[in-house]
Amino acid sequence: MKFIHTSDWHLGRQFHNVSLLEDQQAVLEQLIQYIQNNPVDAVIVAGDIYDRSVPPTVAIELLNRVVKRICGELNTPMILISGNHDGAERLGFGSEQMKNAGLHIISNFEDMLNPVVIQTKTAGLVAFYGMPYNDPEQVRFAYKEAVSTHDEAHKLLAGKITEQFQAGQRNVLVSHCFVDGAIESESERPLSIGGSDRVSHEHFLNFDYVALGHLHQPQKKGEEYIRYSGSLMKYSFGEQNQKKGFTLVELDQNGFVSAEHIDLIAPHEMRIIEGELEQVIEQGKTDPKHEDYLLVRLMDKHAILNPMEKLRAVYPNVLHLEKPGMLIGVEQEMAQAKLARSEIDMFRDFFIEAQDSHLSQEQDQAISDIIKQLSQQSQ
Amino acid sequence: MKFIHTSDWHLGRQFHNVSLLEDQQAVLEQLIQYIQNNPVDAVIVAGDIYDRSVPPTVAIELLNRVVKRICGELNTPMILISGNHDGAERLGFGSEQMKNAGLHIISNFEDMLNPVVIQTKTAGLVAFYGMPYNDPEQVRFAYKEAVSTHDEAHKLLAGKITEQFQAGQRNVLVSHCFVDGAIESESERPLSIGGSDRVSHEHFLNFDYVALGHLHQPQKKGEEYIRYSGSLMKYSFGEQNQKKGFTLVELDQNGFVSAEHIDLIAPHEMRIIEGELEQVIEQGKTDPKHEDYLLVRLMDKHAILNPMEKLRAVYPNVLHLEKPGMLIGVEQEMAQAKLARSEIDMFRDFFIEAQDSHLSQEQDQAISDIIKQLSQQSQ
Repeated sequence: MKFIHTSDWHLGRQFHNVSLLEDQQAVLEQLIQYIQNNPVDAVIVAGDIYDRSVPPTVAIELLNRVVKRICGELNTPMILISGNHDGAERLGFGSEQMKNAGLHIISNFEDMLNPVVIQTKTAGLVAFYGMPYNDPEQVRFAYKEAVSTHDEAHKLLAGKITEQFQAGQRNVLVSHCFVDGAIESESERPLSIGGSDRVSHEHFLNFDYVALGHLHQPQKKGEEYIRYSGSLMKYSFGEQNQKKGFTLVELDQNGFVSAEHIDLIAPHEMRIIEGELEQVIEQGKTDPKHEDYLLVRLMDKHAILNPMEKLRAVYPNVLHLEKPGMLIGVEQEMAQAKLARSEIDMFRDFFIEAQDSHLSQEQDQAISDIIKQLSQQSQ
Repeated sequence: MKFIHTSDWHLGRQFHNVSLLEDQQAVLEQLIQYIQNNPVDAVIVAGDIYDRSVPPTVAIELLNRVVKRICGELNTPMILISGNHDGAERLGFGSEQMKNAGLHIISNFEDMLNPVVIQTKTAGLVAFYGMPYNDPEQVRFAYKEAVSTHDEAHKLLAGKITEQFQAGQRNVLVSHCFVDGAIESESERPLSIGGSDRVSHEHFLNFDYVALGHLHQPQKKGEEYIRYSGSLMKYSFGEQNQKKGFTLVELDQNGFVSAEHIDLIAPHEMRIIEGELEQVIEQGKTDPKHEDYLLVRLMDKHAILNPMEKLRAVYPNVLHLEKPGMLIGVEQEMAQAKLARSEIDMFRDFFIEAQDSHLSQEQDQAISDIIKQLSQQSQ
């Protein structure tokens, strides 16, 4: 049997004030197309379905359409758990009523212990246990046991689940947590401060597969069958080199067989371009991916007028601009024994930018005099 | 066959900064008890399930529990439409997946034309058509027809629904609108300005029963079978004399048989008490309903120190205080040819309130002198 493991959709996310909804819709459409062409037994979303506990209406509508297509038209069960970004109770409304239609939203500990059991041809009965995102306090409250770390909480919950195992079933865990030693990305929200959010993968060894969410980079941890699928798409420039998509998992009667990463390509990729302004603009003129979401690092060492406007003429989706070149310039000058850039130097740069020519000797004298006067007045 | 018609639950409503959730839970518990003792074929909620488009989590949890009890445990289908207070898309998430479990949330025009058809013993097939709350613009956009008033919109939608009628079925309409000539209450939010929100009941004559929501007072309009159930409980002091609850509707093979109002009693009623402070406090000491939510109208004609504090010692849930007596006093005095209350008169009242005795002659003289001095200084 095969199922899709995906996570961290973050529907409704904004990135530098740009809505990513159309990109999210496009990659989800690729996911749906994949399922249409390659039927699977289930689709797992390991938390952070939405980006916020109160998601915008458009994000709810998008999830509704996706669910209609996958559960309804493609008749493929979906199993979702709440992540740290989701509002568990809000996400869980009506979950009892949705089950028979193949939509399983697991957002509380009660549902966690009632697995979704799917009959498959090649792996027999496969039980999917969804562990909603939780913190030690919630576990302490629910089970009245002394639990003070995420690790202890997950150990206890994994134990409770293991007690439910039925002979002859494969067991899949779906969990949203930070497995110790795994690699972080920029776009994750910390679960707690100071590393107390880390969970040992050893609590999960009894399962045939562990479908993890939270970390945005696809990776395995400890065992081949303990995996993060990574997020649906890139959610920070720091993820520019990460492969995004989903994990296709295969199980048989003996358990884990394989896990394969399948790419999903967002219409707008997130990437970083470095170079001097002229060079970046020149390259943009023939860049087929000129609509990508960009962070541009300008290496120019002199001041530039309206760089964003100039860049956006060729790269319309420059979302962020860095000017480390300017800093390097400043640092070098600082080092060159107080040869710091004076106001007149700055103005000369500005004039070149604005007028495309140098100041005449007369103009240079005039502006120098004005700056001198102003500087005397202010002393 | 019998069904329950209810509307305007407004879950999550605050009243004078007090959460009404516990009261809402209590009256819904009465509703559930009623169904348990008197099984019905369906429960209709004609809009304004929630008080806000983004309801608080506790309101969502309450609705979830109610749905679990009614649809799940009592196996009774529920048909809900969105009202003007609800966020239609938000409320409608997963509605496709909930249908088979007997939870029908109708929040768009597509679902409006697919009735919930229930097989009954005494009335055969009964088709429930839910018309979500809508305004002329939405109807214009959806049907590309020139519609500029609520009346035209509802005429068009009722016509579309009528086209779906199947021979041999009873037809029930569920709608959230303001039927022309019906009686408003204080706690409804206007649908539009200047009366253009009114809808003629004549568009609804073809139905066997019309379950209306929006107006908070139970009432019929035009025909016995065109009815508002009224809100679940009182939502303003102006509704103190309204009977709150739900409507029990009976249909048979020939259509409408009867509609009966069944009371639901909130733990805290909303009511208005009028009287002088001492009198109200005396009455409160033996009032078995002293925990009601109260508006107190104090008829005293002199100033009173800390009346709220004094009242709350016997009536802990005084939510609002009016002092028309003070105004009457002031008006009378104004009329009595400038015998307006002086500062010394005010202070004498205050002293009686604070010390429970009159100023001695000496004290009266002293305070009069001080007031005179101050008044000279300020001139």
